[in-house]
Amino acid sequence: MAKVLTAQADDFPRWYQDVVAKAELADNGPVRGTMVIRPYGYSIWERMQAEMDARIKAAGAENAYFPLFIPESYLRREAEHVEGFSPELAVVTHAGGKALDEPIVVRPTSETVIGEFMARWIQSYRDLPLLLNTWNNVVRWELRPRLFLRTTEFLWQEGHTAHVTREDAEAYAIRILREVYEDFMVNVLAMPLLVGRKTASERFAGAFNTMTCEAMMRDGKALQMGTSHELGSNFAKAFDITYLDARGETQHCWTTSWGSTTRMIGGVIMTHGDDDGLVVPPALAPIQALVLVVKDEGGTGERAAALADELSAAGVRTRLDDRVGQTFGRRVTDWELKGVPVRVEIGPRDLAADAATLVRRDTGAKEQVPLPALAGRVEKLVADVQQDMLADARGRRDANIADASDIREAADASRSGFARLPWRLVRGEGEARLAADGVTVRCLQRPDGSLPRSEDEDDLVAFVARAY
Amino acid sequence: MAKVLTAQADDFPRWYQDVVAKAELADNGPVRGTMVIRPYGYSIWERMQAEMDARIKAAGAENAYFPLFIPESYLRREAEHVEGFSPELAVVTHAGGKALDEPIVVRPTSETVIGEFMARWIQSYRDLPLLLNTWNNVVRWELRPRLFLRTTEFLWQEGHTAHVTREDAEAYAIRILREVYEDFMVNVLAMPLLVGRKTASERFAGAFNTMTCEAMMRDGKALQMGTSHELGSNFAKAFDITYLDARGETQHCWTTSWGSTTRMIGGVIMTHGDDDGLVVPPALAPIQALVLVVKDEGGTGERAAALADELSAAGVRTRLDDRVGQTFGRRVTDWELKGVPVRVEIGPRDLAADAATLVRRDTGAKEQVPLPALAGRVEKLVADVQQDMLADARGRRDANIADASDIREAADASRSGFARLPWRLVRGEGEARLAADGVTVRCLQRPDGSLPRSEDEDDLVAFVARAY
Repeated sequence: MAKVLTAQADDFPRWYQDVVAKAELADNGPVRGTMVIRPYGYSIWERMQAEMDARIKAAGAENAYFPLFIPESYLRREAEHVEGFSPELAVVTHAGGKALDEPIVVRPTSETVIGEFMARWIQSYRDLPLLLNTWNNVVRWELRPRLFLRTTEFLWQEGHTAHVTREDAEAYAIRILREVYEDFMVNVLAMPLLVGRKTASERFAGAFNTMTCEAMMRDGKALQMGTSHELGSNFAKAFDITYLDARGETQHCWTTSWGSTTRMIGGVIMTHGDDDGLVVPPALAPIQALVLVVKDEGGTGERAAALADELSAAGVRTRLDDRVGQTFGRRVTDWELKGVPVRVEIGPRDLAADAATLVRRDTGAKEQVPLPALAGRVEKLVADVQQDMLADARGRRDANIADASDIREAADASRSGFARLPWRLVRGEGEARLAADGVTVRCLQRPDGSLPRSEDEDDLVAFVARAY
Repeated sequence: MAKVLTAQADDFPRWYQDVVAKAELADNGPVRGTMVIRPYGYSIWERMQAEMDARIKAAGAENAYFPLFIPESYLRREAEHVEGFSPELAVVTHAGGKALDEPIVVRPTSETVIGEFMARWIQSYRDLPLLLNTWNNVVRWELRPRLFLRTTEFLWQEGHTAHVTREDAEAYAIRILREVYEDFMVNVLAMPLLVGRKTASERFAGAFNTMTCEAMMRDGKALQMGTSHELGSNFAKAFDITYLDARGETQHCWTTSWGSTTRMIGGVIMTHGDDDGLVVPPALAPIQALVLVVKDEGGTGERAAALADELSAAGVRTRLDDRVGQTFGRRVTDWELKGVPVRVEIGPRDLAADAATLVRRDTGAKEQVPLPALAGRVEKLVADVQQDMLADARGRRDANIADASDIREAADASRSGFARLPWRLVRGEGEARLAADGVTVRCLQRPDGSLPRSEDEDDLVAFVARAY
C-alpha cells in the first residue's frame, strides 16, 4: 500500500506539512501567512483552551477582552517594545471610506493597551494584584510562515498582571510557568519540557527575566512552547501604572506577562506524530475512542452505537464511525492520520464472539476484548496510553541530549538533538559562535534543574539547540 | 442616599452608559468605537458563549477558525455583499514595513473567505451538509458607537452552512433560529422574543430570507438579537460552491448564515436593568449567589465561607464577599449594580439566630432563612427568579405592544413601544412613511405567530418599532 505521508526520515518538514493537510488540521489562508484552522484542528485547540483556561482561573486570573486596534502612538511609548515589533506590524490607514488621521496598528500583543487600562483601573494597593488574561488573535507579519508554528495571525492567550512588590510579581510569573504551562504541557500534551531561564540575548523585549518551556521535536529541534516574563517596573513606568501605598504615597507597580499560542498544536504534531500521521495524547484528544463499524451486518451497527453510548456514559470522549459505504481500510487510514488514541473495531465476526478489537494508535498493539469488559478496558487504555506517550517522549528526548565540553561539540550535537554544557563555556562570545551554526541557547538551569534567579549564578547549565 | 445611576425615566441612554461603566462591564477603547470588555462583562460573555456553543454543537455544527485578513478582491466577488459593507471596512495598506501590493480588508464577516474554503472542501453530495461555526472578532466602522450595541469591533459567532437542497437549507436556518437563538434567549437570557421574517428592505445583503429574534427594551425600542439567513444559491454561485450529485452532475449548493454578537449583553442590560443597575438572570449569571459577610465577628467569616462552599457544592455559582474592610452599604450597592440575582447576607446577629437574610435582586424581597435550609432555599430561588424575570419581561413587553389600524397610529405607538398592524397596511409606501419617523418593520409573523415563508402570504402581521 502506498504511504499517504512522506516519511519523517525522508523529509521531516514535508512530513509535517503532509500531516497538517491530510489530518485536516489547517490550510493556508488567502493572505500570505494566515491560517484556516479546520474543524478537527480547531477541536484540538478548543480542548487546549479549556484545559489551560481552567488552570489560569485556578491561578486567580480573570479573562477580559481588549481591542484589536491600537493607536500607533501607543507602541512608541516603550522604545524597547516597539523595536521588538515594528517590522512585524500590520497597519490600517483607511477606514470608514477615508484615510485616517492617525494610523492604527493591528495588535501584535495587547501589552500596551492593557498597560493603559491597568493605569486607569489601579488606584490603591487594595486593587493589587490585578491578574488579567485574554484569549484573542494577534498579527505579526511573517516572511517564512509555517502552519501553526509561525503564522502572520495566530490565536493565543496573553496574561498581564500588576503587583505591589517584585517578589510577588516573580512568584506569580513562576506560578503561571509551573502550574499552568508546565502542568498542562506535561500532563495533558504528554510533552516533557526543559523549564528554564532565557539568556539576556533571547529575552522578550522589555523583560528583565524571561522563563520558558522548551520541548524537543522528533527531528531534534527545539520548540518554545510558552514563556512567562518579569517586566520589572519598566513597563509600569512607561505606562504610568501606579498605586497609592498604605501611607498614601504613589508607587510604580511590578508587572508580568505570559503567553502561549496555537503553535502548541505544531508541538503536539512534531512530538508524537509518526509515519502514519498525528498521535493525539488521550488527555488532549477531542475523540479519545473511535468505535468503527467494520460491516453493518447482523445488527453490528446497532450494537456499535450502543457501545459508543456506553463509552460516552463512562466519560470517554467517543465517536461512532458507521460510514460503511466507505471501505474499512480507507477509514482506518483516515483515523490513524487524525491520531485518535484508541480504536474499537467491531464487525459481524466480533459480534458473534461477543467481542471487539481494540487498537492503540501509539503502539499499534491490538487485543480482543469481550464486550462486557470493553468500557473498563478502554478507560484503562486511555490512562495507559497517556502515561506511555509521555514516557516515550521523555525517553526520546533524553536520548537526544548530549553532554558537550565545548562550543564545537555543542554545535555538532545540535544537528540531531540538544546539547548540554556549562553556561560559563558559552557566555560571552559563545552565543554568537553558536548562532553562526543556527544554534541558540534554549534555556539555563541550575544543576538540580531548578530556575536560576540570574545568569550570573555559578555552575549554571545551558541547553542549546536549533529551534523552530 | 444619592443615587449612583441616572434614573431610567430621566434619561435612558445615560442610564445605560452609567450601568455599563459602574457595573464595570466595559470601557471605550483608545481607537474610536472600540471596546474593552472588563472581567465582569467578559464573564457574562463567556457564559453566553458556553450556553450558545453547546446548542450550536447539538445542532451538528462544528467550530473552525478563518483568517482576520481578507484580500480586498474577495469582497468584490458578490456585488450585493460588498455594497452592504464597503463604507464600513477597515483596510490594511502597510505590513512588514512596506506598502502591500493588494490592500487587505479586516473581516466585517467571514462570509467570503468561508465561501472560498467551502468551495475547496466540498466535492460530492457525501460532504453535505457542511455545518460550520466560528467565534471571532469582526470590524465594521461605526460613526455613532455605543458600548455593546454598536461598536467598531465586536465579538460574535457566525455560522455558515451548505446543503444539497433548498428545503434542507431552510430547515437548518429555522433550526438554528429556534433551537439555538430562541431557546437560549428565552430560557437563559429570560428575554421574550418576537421571532419573525424580515421584510425585503430589512434583509441581510445577499439573503433571500432573513429571520430574526426581536426583543423589546425597557424604553420600548426594539433590539435585533440574532438573525438567520437563507442565502439561496446566490452565494454558492458567486463562490463556486458546487458538489457532484449521485449521478455525477455538478450542482450548486444552497447556503445559510446566522450570527449573534456581544450586543446581546446590551440586550440583557436594557431588558432587565433597573434604577439600581444591572439585573442578571440566574441561568446566565456568572455569580448566581453572593454570600456577603456583614461583619466578621464571632466566627461569621468562617461560617460564611463554609456556606459558600456548601452552595457551590449544590451546583450554585457562588462568590464570597468577606471584604469587611469596606462598608457594608458600599458593597451592597456594588453587587446590586452588578445584578447578582441572590444575595445571602450573614452577620453576627444572623449567626446567633442560626439564620441568614436572603435578598432577591429582581424584587428586593428579603427573607430570613435558617442556615440548615439555606442551600435548598437558594436553589429554589435561583429557579424562581429566572422564571419570574421572564414572566415580568413578557408582561412589560406585551403591555407595550399596541394594535394600530393605520401607519399614523403605528408611528405614534412606536414612541413608547411596538405597534402591531396588518402587513397589507404597511406594504409598499408604508415602510418609507414609517422610516420618516425613525420607525421600521421589525418582523412579519403569521396570525398564529409562526414564520411566514414569503411576505406575499395573506393576513401577515407586521411588528413595527424604533430600534437600536
